Amino acid sequence: MKYIESTQNKQIKEHAKLLQKKERDRSGLFLVEGHHMIEEAIAANCLKEIYLLEGEDNFTDLEPIFCSQQVINKLSSQNSNAKIIGVCTKPDIQPEKFDVVLLLDGIQDPGNVGTILRSAYAFGVDYVYLSKDCADIYNPKTLQSSQGAIFHIGTMNTDLYDTIRFLQIENTTIYATSLHEPYKNLQDVKPKLPYGLVLGNEGKGIRQDILNICDMSIKIEMDTFESLNVATACSICLYTLKHAS
Amino acid sequence: MKYIESTQNKQIKEHAKLLQKKERDRSGLFLVEGHHMIEEAIAANCLKEIYLLEGEDNFTDLEPIFCSQQVINKLSSQNSNAKIIGVCTKPDIQPEKFDVVLLLDGIQDPGNVGTILRSAYAFGVDYVYLSKDCADIYNPKTLQSSQGAIFHIGTMNTDLYDTIRFLQIENTTIYATSLHEPYKNLQDVKPKLPYGLVLGNEGKGIRQDILNICDMSIKIEMDTFESLNVATACSICLYTLKHAS
Repeated sequence: MKYIESTQNKQIKEHAKLLQKKERDRSGLFLVEGHHMIEEAIAANCLKEIYLLEGEDNFTDLEPIFCSQQVINKLSSQNSNAKIIGVCTKPDIQPEKFDVVLLLDGIQDPGNVGTILRSAYAFGVDYVYLSKDCADIYNPKTLQSSQGAIFHIGTMNTDLYDTIRFLQIENTTIYATSLHEPYKNLQDVKPKLPYGLVLGNEGKGIRQDILNICDMSIKIEMDTFESLNVATACSICLYTLKHAS
Repeated sequence: MKYIESTQNKQIKEHAKLLQKKERDRSGLFLVEGHHMIEEAIAANCLKEIYLLEGEDNFTDLEPIFCSQQVINKLSSQNSNAKIIGVCTKPDIQPEKFDVVLLLDGIQDPGNVGTILRSAYAFGVDYVYLSKDCADIYNPKTLQSSQGAIFHIGTMNTDLYDTIRFLQIENTTIYATSLHEPYKNLQDVKPKLPYGLVLGNEGKGIRQDILNICDMSIKIEMDTFESLNVATACSICLYTLKHAS
């Protein structure tokens, strides 16, 4: 049985660096926490290593490294005491089709990006493109909000402008969610496959140069002049467009 | 000009207690942060006191108390340096009608409760009932996610079972969002006013005794066996039911 007690252990110090985006980018690895995420990582064949709190039962086929609570805490992003941490390789998911794609422009809150990925998976989105200034999908908060969707849906950090131009050549209609005129009300949009949906930054919305090349703007009808949370707006559009197409 | 430099100031120590639910419940007061929330509080006639970081411009008609950054930080729930904090009385909002009501059963994440209130206000919900184990609507995280909706929409902490029984006597149809059979797909529900929508706890869903007395269960159609974030599910239902009624 392998056991690590000290937070000064070299391997632990290396893996704790994965809490930082820079190290995740460099290594291609990331950390997951909790029973559900570990099971998702195993199913996706992405789990490399398991750190398990001493005394806990191992529910996987892998041989875990048992650790003191201090070691687990050093690898955990949460305040509460975690019990299991996994080291994963980033999944490489190739979609069968590109009928419905999402494009996220500068969405900076990890919780929002995670909730969007969760909804995208639930509603059968084929692929998600993220501008390079979006929250990292392997950020622990993003992973937590995504509930493991990251192991099921293909994603890519990319230049959104070029991607939209490419998709349009491939006959994909690009819808922008925007409060700027001219727009169509969501209830009046009857999309044909393939289509893409662009969501913008929480405060500033979609960048003007990207908005300019979208084929149509969509507005979610509201009773007030208020706005919606971006993950909420995304999910309403995905669900409604799916049932209108 | 009033100025407070020390975090040991008696008034500051008293108002800092408002970061705790117990003190908010006792006093009927709560704290808000930031330009947008202060404006909402003023518009709702709920603002009692403003603490403004020294050197900042006062954009309100009230006389602020200028404070050191340390004092502002003591009143703030955020890590980043806040600049303005308001002390508010809890709003008392009486709706004109009860055509569409929300009922939240044990929703414990403050961000979820806030996002639900934000969507409820955007989609013209008349009133929101919350079970007593929901996150406090005056929790700083709830307020932040609600984007000030709390100043526009009436809410009450209540016994949901009794409330549902009362609403049903008043001819309100009560829909539960639930994955348990029997259910109707959301696309097939054609609600008549007045109606209520029940949302359940993030992990456990709606309590069985409450589920038992609801008139119908609604399922949001999904491609996978995954679930949605509760605020996402709520918002999709509110938007879709509104356009189906």
